[in-house]
Amino acid sequence: MELNKALKNLRPSLIRMLAEEGKKYDNVISLAIGDPDIPTPRELVKEALKFAEEQHFGYATTALVEKSGTVAADFYNKTYNTNFTSGNILFNIGSSEALTSSIRTITNPGDEIIMFAPFYPGYCSIIELASGVPVVVDITENDFKITPQLIEKYLTPKTKAIIFCNPCNPTGLVLSYDEIKSICDFLKDKDLFIIADEIYCMINFSGFTSFVQFPEILDKLIVINSFSKSHSMTGWRNGYSIVPKELKQYFSSTSSSTIATPATLSLVAGNIALEKYSDVSETAAIYKERAKVVTEALTKLGYKVIDSQGAFYLFADYRSISKKDSLAFALELVKQVQVSVVPGIAFGTEGYIRISLTVSNEKLLEAVERMSNYKEV
Amino acid sequence: MELNKALKNLRPSLIRMLAEEGKKYDNVISLAIGDPDIPTPRELVKEALKFAEEQHFGYATTALVEKSGTVAADFYNKTYNTNFTSGNILFNIGSSEALTSSIRTITNPGDEIIMFAPFYPGYCSIIELASGVPVVVDITENDFKITPQLIEKYLTPKTKAIIFCNPCNPTGLVLSYDEIKSICDFLKDKDLFIIADEIYCMINFSGFTSFVQFPEILDKLIVINSFSKSHSMTGWRNGYSIVPKELKQYFSSTSSSTIATPATLSLVAGNIALEKYSDVSETAAIYKERAKVVTEALTKLGYKVIDSQGAFYLFADYRSISKKDSLAFALELVKQVQVSVVPGIAFGTEGYIRISLTVSNEKLLEAVERMSNYKEV
Repeated sequence: MELNKALKNLRPSLIRMLAEEGKKYDNVISLAIGDPDIPTPRELVKEALKFAEEQHFGYATTALVEKSGTVAADFYNKTYNTNFTSGNILFNIGSSEALTSSIRTITNPGDEIIMFAPFYPGYCSIIELASGVPVVVDITENDFKITPQLIEKYLTPKTKAIIFCNPCNPTGLVLSYDEIKSICDFLKDKDLFIIADEIYCMINFSGFTSFVQFPEILDKLIVINSFSKSHSMTGWRNGYSIVPKELKQYFSSTSSSTIATPATLSLVAGNIALEKYSDVSETAAIYKERAKVVTEALTKLGYKVIDSQGAFYLFADYRSISKKDSLAFALELVKQVQVSVVPGIAFGTEGYIRISLTVSNEKLLEAVERMSNYKEV
Repeated sequence: MELNKALKNLRPSLIRMLAEEGKKYDNVISLAIGDPDIPTPRELVKEALKFAEEQHFGYATTALVEKSGTVAADFYNKTYNTNFTSGNILFNIGSSEALTSSIRTITNPGDEIIMFAPFYPGYCSIIELASGVPVVVDITENDFKITPQLIEKYLTPKTKAIIFCNPCNPTGLVLSYDEIKSICDFLKDKDLFIIADEIYCMINFSGFTSFVQFPEILDKLIVINSFSKSHSMTGWRNGYSIVPKELKQYFSSTSSSTIATPATLSLVAGNIALEKYSDVSETAAIYKERAKVVTEALTKLGYKVIDSQGAFYLFADYRSISKKDSLAFALELVKQVQVSVVPGIAFGTEGYIRISLTVSNEKLLEAVERMSNYKEV
């Protein structure tokens, strides 16, 4: 029986692969998976569990879904001075299903979707499984800057959307107001969607500008957000999309055909997170400190680390340490010094590794100490 | 911006529509949505919540996913005398994502997937969004029987799969051992997949045969199961697929590209359900009693009710009561007597309504009493 042809192109996740590789050794320090170690606020969890203790719950009710939409819209309106209502908001199973359902909603076979390398690895398979074509724009040669001039070179009549990951996984770079403004000025009259993957927006070290702040592109904007990173709620699978109101029914059709409804308890927890725990500045400060400390330590070893402004990753150029390709280097790091990181090639960029700042400073420094013992073989 | 062309064919859910229509009236008895009223076993919920109280959890770990697979495989092996391992099992977000990801895994554009009307309405949109073609076989003219002779008429070189919903939503019919045996004999050498949607398997009134009991078709069998109906856990969004071991990596790719991972707490709850609460015979007995009582009452009113053998629905021929089409009749029932049911056309079959047995006997009988006051206008 022949399977979906798109599956032939899919490669197993190198993030998972390196995490699994690490498990073969005792005492590995895993800096591979972006799963926060900082606990979910306990009071948030307690309050959500109280809901489940006190009542039998079924499918998310229309009232709960509506409330969740209103809470998210209110949060955006307060934070970014927007005018969203629940009619713009769609709750999903994490940002993965938000992205999958959004891309399936807008894509016909052969449609091109532009992304920038280094990119979040999930984008490619999501696009290919939706019979779209990922178009990768390498920004390493452009000092990691995204500009209208660069985008213009890749636009074709088949361009359906452009994905911006901001703050960026894996680089930690954050687009400035002026950068987004010039991108929006350029794109506002184009017949395409802007997908703003802003799941790390709350983890920024010196400010954050959202694409929602630019009214001129709201008719083509799809924002992807989630509670996984901001509130350390990866296991709850709760995310949401912000879409143009008049198109929401189509995004809803795709999503409900995929998951029926979001998870009831996770919706309840998400509402509590936005209503009572929306200030995650303490969490962001922890990641900022880790980024600073580890960047300094790696720099001393000879790594060239991109100056992170958000999210919880460092993307480090290791080419003065090793001549290996990034997969071979990452595997050798696990083997020699029991530190697992993700090879840059997972993100479409050779010569780099990604380090997750999701263990304590102490452990991070121990990892760097171990990495100092790496010997090129 | 042009959207996915498949979305043009999608109609809003008539189940949701009738449920919403009911909300416009005071005191409606809603028999529209299949959301169990029987509570999830409290001890099961308590034990699952304890996990969340005691520890911060992140993405479902490989160990938890592996354990869930083993628990489900063990359950099947004990119940059906099979030889599954965790290598056959994939956990999903409810049966919806299990079905969506399975169908996306096997479908190329234009592939045909056969289903039998009356069918679960979600199948069509799932198939169309996967660029497949739903092929509907009407079994009302065949006394609601599925036979090899009937299937044969619809097989083409493009047939990729056949979906069997057993026990059937909406009819409550259950395929006998002999019926499945003859279907498997016919299909075992065909180049296609058998999708067995067995989410109601535990709610059967006089026995149930699973497709897994037929080794001759295991190389082409995809079983869809879930905890939503058996354990009244619709809001937890936990389901699973059983697939041929050598193909599991492809099903996993599609699913992880869609949802990243299943929901951690729901996996924990599902394991508890199968390990400690797998006997749901008391729940099944309640639905059996409801089915009996309501069938008798409706029959007295002149409805011809299909003799339900499982699941928690009745599918009733109303044509001696009304000449209206099923949507008009269902809307008129809400308006006149404040009872909401689902029109047969939602399932591809005119002249019938579906009644969910998910309220108490008392309420069900009150609903029938109200329906006796219906006047054709």
